[in-house]
Amino acid sequence: MPLESKERGDSQELAPTDAPYTRVHRSARPEGTRIRVGGVEIGGEGFVVAAGPCAVESRAQLDRTARAVAASGASVLRGGAFKPRTSPYAFRGLGRPGLEMLRDVGRELGMPVVTEVLDPGDAGLVADHADILQIGARNMQNYALLEAAGRAGRPVLLKRGLSATIEELLLAAEYVALQGNLDIILCERGIRTFETATRNTLDLGAAVLLGERTHLPVIVDPSHASGRASMVGPLSMAAAAAGVAGVIVEVHPDPRHALCDGAQSVAVSEFPALMGGVASTLAGRGRPFSTPSASLDPETRLEWETERLKGLDRMLVRLARERAAAGLRIDALQSKIGRPGRNAPDAPAWQEGIRGDSCSHLKPVTTSPTD
Amino acid sequence: MPLESKERGDSQELAPTDAPYTRVHRSARPEGTRIRVGGVEIGGEGFVVAAGPCAVESRAQLDRTARAVAASGASVLRGGAFKPRTSPYAFRGLGRPGLEMLRDVGRELGMPVVTEVLDPGDAGLVADHADILQIGARNMQNYALLEAAGRAGRPVLLKRGLSATIEELLLAAEYVALQGNLDIILCERGIRTFETATRNTLDLGAAVLLGERTHLPVIVDPSHASGRASMVGPLSMAAAAAGVAGVIVEVHPDPRHALCDGAQSVAVSEFPALMGGVASTLAGRGRPFSTPSASLDPETRLEWETERLKGLDRMLVRLARERAAAGLRIDALQSKIGRPGRNAPDAPAWQEGIRGDSCSHLKPVTTSPTD
Amino acid sequence: MPLESKERGDSQELAPTDAPYTRVHRSARPEGTRIRVGGVEIGGEGFVVAAGPCAVESRAQLDRTARAVAASGASVLRGGAFKPRTSPYAFRGLGRPGLEMLRDVGRELGMPVVTEVLDPGDAGLVADHADILQIGARNMQNYALLEAAGRAGRPVLLKRGLSATIEELLLAAEYVALQGNLDIILCERGIRTFETATRNTLDLGAAVLLGERTHLPVIVDPSHASGRASMVGPLSMAAAAAGVAGVIVEVHPDPRHALCDGAQSVAVSEFPALMGGVASTLAGRGRPFSTPSASLDPETRLEWETERLKGLDRMLVRLARERAAAGLRIDALQSKIGRPGRNAPDAPAWQEGIRGDSCSHLKPVTTSPTD
Amino acid sequence: MPLESKERGDSQELAPTDAPYTRVHRSARPEGTRIRVGGVEIGGEGFVVAAGPCAVESRAQLDRTARAVAASGASVLRGGAFKPRTSPYAFRGLGRPGLEMLRDVGRELGMPVVTEVLDPGDAGLVADHADILQIGARNMQNYALLEAAGRAGRPVLLKRGLSATIEELLLAAEYVALQGNLDIILCERGIRTFETATRNTLDLGAAVLLGERTHLPVIVDPSHASGRASMVGPLSMAAAAAGVAGVIVEVHPDPRHALCDGAQSVAVSEFPALMGGVASTLAGRGRPFSTPSASLDPETRLEWETERLKGLDRMLVRLARERAAAGLRIDALQSKIGRPGRNAPDAPAWQEGIRGDSCSHLKPVTTSPTD
Repeated sequence: MPLESKERGDSQELAPTDAPYTRVHRSARPEGTRIRVGGVEIGGEGFVVAAGPCAVESRAQLDRTARAVAASGASVLRGGAFKPRTSPYAFRGLGRPGLEMLRDVGRELGMPVVTEVLDPGDAGLVADHADILQIGARNMQNYALLEAAGRAGRPVLLKRGLSATIEELLLAAEYVALQGNLDIILCERGIRTFETATRNTLDLGAAVLLGERTHLPVIVDPSHASGRASMVGPLSMAAAAAGVAGVIVEVHPDPRHALCDGAQSVAVSEFPALMGGVASTLAGRGRPFSTPSASLDPETRLEWETERLKGLDRMLVRLARERAAAGLRIDALQSKIGRPGRNAPDAPAWQEGIRGDSCSHLKPVTTSPTD
Repeated sequence: MPLESKERGDSQELAPTDAPYTRVHRSARPEGTRIRVGGVEIGGEGFVVAAGPCAVESRAQLDRTARAVAASGASVLRGGAFKPRTSPYAFRGLGRPGLEMLRDVGRELGMPVVTEVLDPGDAGLVADHADILQIGARNMQNYALLEAAGRAGRPVLLKRGLSATIEELLLAAEYVALQGNLDIILCERGIRTFETATRNTLDLGAAVLLGERTHLPVIVDPSHASGRASMVGPLSMAAAAAGVAGVIVEVHPDPRHALCDGAQSVAVSEFPALMGGVASTLAGRGRPFSTPSASLDPETRLEWETERLKGLDRMLVRLARERAAAGLRIDALQSKIGRPGRNAPDAPAWQEGIRGDSCSHLKPVTTSPTD
Repeated sequence: MPLESKERGDSQELAPTDAPYTRVHRSARPEGTRIRVGGVEIGGEGFVVAAGPCAVESRAQLDRTARAVAASGASVLRGGAFKPRTSPYAFRGLGRPGLEMLRDVGRELGMPVVTEVLDPGDAGLVADHADILQIGARNMQNYALLEAAGRAGRPVLLKRGLSATIEELLLAAEYVALQGNLDIILCERGIRTFETATRNTLDLGAAVLLGERTHLPVIVDPSHASGRASMVGPLSMAAAAAGVAGVIVEVHPDPRHALCDGAQSVAVSEFPALMGGVASTLAGRGRPFSTPSASLDPETRLEWETERLKGLDRMLVRLARERAAAGLRIDALQSKIGRPGRNAPDAPAWQEGIRGDSCSHLKPVTTSPTD
Repeated sequence: MPLESKERGDSQELAPTDAPYTRVHRSARPEGTRIRVGGVEIGGEGFVVAAGPCAVESRAQLDRTARAVAASGASVLRGGAFKPRTSPYAFRGLGRPGLEMLRDVGRELGMPVVTEVLDPGDAGLVADHADILQIGARNMQNYALLEAAGRAGRPVLLKRGLSATIEELLLAAEYVALQGNLDIILCERGIRTFETATRNTLDLGAAVLLGERTHLPVIVDPSHASGRASMVGPLSMAAAAAGVAGVIVEVHPDPRHALCDGAQSVAVSEFPALMGGVASTLAGRGRPFSTPSASLDPETRLEWETERLKGLDRMLVRLARERAAAGLRIDALQSKIGRPGRNAPDAPAWQEGIRGDSCSHLKPVTTSPTD
């Protein structure tokens, strides 16, 4: 595939000439990407456990689950407010009230929150409430959504599609990266194969191989991969042993009555044993859990709240640099053919642009009165 | 899966109790659905051939291709203006100018136009230009897009996802149908398997089985299914023999220099032979091609232009009927518990609603001055 | 893959340098292979229909089925005597008595018989009774069986494995061909994919592509591909339209009580309609059914009975020629290094060998007294 | 599937009524099966590592590899003498001399040997030399081979087919078990999916689920599963963490020049690091490697050599008991209809049988003079 250099910016020198993805390729950051969100580091030494219910069903259900997983060492809170469902008649989530519950409970417990965004038009709303935006497996190649999520100023958790190759997953991540956002977490969540005894087939080898091919952190979702609660523990330990950055696990106070994915949800009462198994697997290799550094003092809170702002700033800086580099290249080419360059970085057409309304979809972070 | 009867409306009696999709289930219309668009009938006696380039590259390329396929008997013009591409660096289509070229060429030749919509926010724009909205394989479970396309007042061509089961395809169609739009064409376009000698694996059996399970017309895309131009002819004949409603085929004046999918594009020069093969296959079974009834007299043009309006009207009527039925059921339940019913059809809250701006995203059909 | 020329014999010049299979590659016989068996030609103009029960259950069941399919135009009788079954507790066939019934009924009706061989040790026995030896999907890469079947002096029907690529199928055929036997019929019988609505997924595209890549005739098995009797007709018509050499279909007098594969067996009463549909599909393209030329006069019978002898003779001649060519090449190499050649064709070491017992597993064709 | 009770023997009471496999079902031995072979226990506390070259290429290559893997803690020696190869032109193994090398090197180092058997006719020969008979993925449903291997008096290592479901694997094991041999090791070795970045897709979830469904020990083959040497270490650690019985790994002194599967072979020089990683993973969970108890004193040697004899004896005893139970049931039925029973255990027709030649294919264990 011919890559047009004018679109790739200045990381070009580092990139291998034959890889179709250059921003997320390992060679772009040989040391690996570490993402800090809400006091938690993803992609560093610590093993990250994100846990919570498939869908937010009520404040009580969320509270109980979140407190339990936090007490056992999970550092990120997961939960669905907008749920993609195969059937239009299934429970599709609480929507905005669910987002608000997630934000409130996460803030209370000091856990950053990850939740799914389904519609490009909702990216701003979800980014106002959640700390990490999840793109689900069904939407891995929903390019409008990838770009909207990439521009929302939050880390993006990108799940592999049911039948997506490793290369397609990396190319989807490249769509996000091209928005100026390299805070991307990849997630292997099981692929679709001929086998029907499990809901999907965990492709742990893909997670290992991704670690060779990209600098982005890779986590594993053993809940969707297996569809069976009894397998979530062994597969979480396997993922820890294989060296991935973390796992994301569905937990519910009462799986038999869950509105969504009950069969694969670990009961709150069984979650500590799961974490114990993972801990002993990590111990053999001398690896800790990733834990939030943050206690809930006001300064930490403020720092946390400003993360998205910093995310947007980093993105703007990256894009401005790339824009400047591209302008310089064009000027150089024009000077060769005797035409004056007009695209140098000191010609701030784009700076004018942002005074307009192009960013109006990014609403300010709202803080609830009880916060 | 428990289906909540209150959401299903009055087709409930016809539907089998165990099928999770009731609107698109065969039993809802045992005689099958026939869709009329731009003078062409899809799902009737005639075999429909939709043909055209993968991507609109220029007015000249589109013109040449469209005239050639029309001359050979194709009745629908296909072409991509917004192209979903695995790599963000690949050609992603001409966008709006491509849409305008499609509309203009289609109108000139009397061929209805089918083109893909990628973003829920573009559904209105695409519906302003095209006669059929295509949902691509990557977006089969992009529910926001399914709903937006379903509300756009045009027939929807829904392609099966790369690893979607037949049931998942029918449930995706049910999302469209729930918008009040039953003008849905299903398309088997090859699934992803272990085999790499072909781009995908044509699952012709699925097309046959879909014909048993749904009243919607089913067509086949042999171009994406095989990825090889030499196979498009034999597979088109096979599809015709298996009894499907039609095929959708990629054709290009110069496949070696196509900006997209050249390897699977039939050359304009080879298209007549393909149509000849399909014609002789159909002849054995006494089946004709579907051909536009329309010559380009002004009255036919007007009729064609008002199709979308009628589509929207039909949708409104269906939804209003279902709303009325649902209201009556609720009233009946309330009267049982001694509370007054407030949802009867004569309480036209929803009629007020449409005076507001809920439909403002549906822009009027624009007619270019040269039309 | 490096091919050692010394193993490939004199067809080397014709073969493409990069194909790993040279004997079965299209270029080895650009005009295609036509196989004559029991008066029926496979791979010629006529479309071959092989039909019969999944398993031979009784003489009466076989008789009734065979007469019915013969009357409707089927030219080859299929039936299982040794049945491979996923479960050791399922009906595994009548064994030798089943073979004898097949031979007797086939002889009576003038239909050549195809049946499966499971054990290399049974190849001689099966070849004594059947006209075509079938290698089933489970055994496509059972190399001991491929070689034993290839040496049995009968055409071989080789079914594609459930997850075998086109290239692996051709390489399996090459194993047979290397025994000196080019009378090989390939069979696409559905592959295993994620879809569970059908038993397997018919890969009709593979049948088309095989026709480009090999000179061997290719047939389709719509019964195993779909697992549903209602789909066998449409898929047979599709196969006919795609231009393959024929189909192999399971038929039973009473599918609901079949001991094996009842769900996919076409009822005897519905078989004429299936043949009618195929006939009209073929008619559009001016193609006839393949029909046995043989009436049952004694001379034809004798000719038929001597087919296997001729098969063995042809195989011997081919191998002898290749052996001679290989010897000459070795002699030439030896003369270059000053050593006398000892492998020339006039050094008939191998002729001595066949006077020994190396062929004793090939028992003579037995003729029953009632024949 | 209806199971005929007369074939199932007296373990019937333990078996669940709906599982189609009763002998290998977990409920038949809730405590799990431990197999002792050559002083090594498989399925017990210790984690078993079987290692060695894909194919035996020479005595020197085998020696060097075997000594290295033994020194690092591997307890079983693997190596191919008969190699199934997709292409008939590829290296197919040294055959009998390879078997002899394996036996000699294994005896010298005190390591039991596992090697593949391809032809039912070779089962006796392979059992004379190897301690465990491997059935490869291509032959998982080669029922003649399953039965021959099951009768050879040695433990059987049964690999999952490329596209075999968990249930099909268990049914294939049931074929072996029905020969009276419950010393079966199952092996997950990667399945075939759409992903081509790895040779196969390791289905570690299947290994976990097998552990719930069967009492047989389950091991993992990370070499074939990934096809990439760099992934073998991480996947071995993952398997250890998931709790399986062991792994089987391809190791070669010089992978770049291996005659078979070089890309997935771990270099001898890198094997200690792999074992170190596995050891630390096991350490976290307090689990040791399985190690041969045997030093090479003559008594241990004798014990080892008599293992196969004991295997055959155990098999005979099991079958005799089942035969007796079946006879009693038949007698009971006959007495109900007033006919004398003739099948009681004291009517030893089968004992007569074994004085005949039905077992003559089982040749005595030969001991080479240098042993």
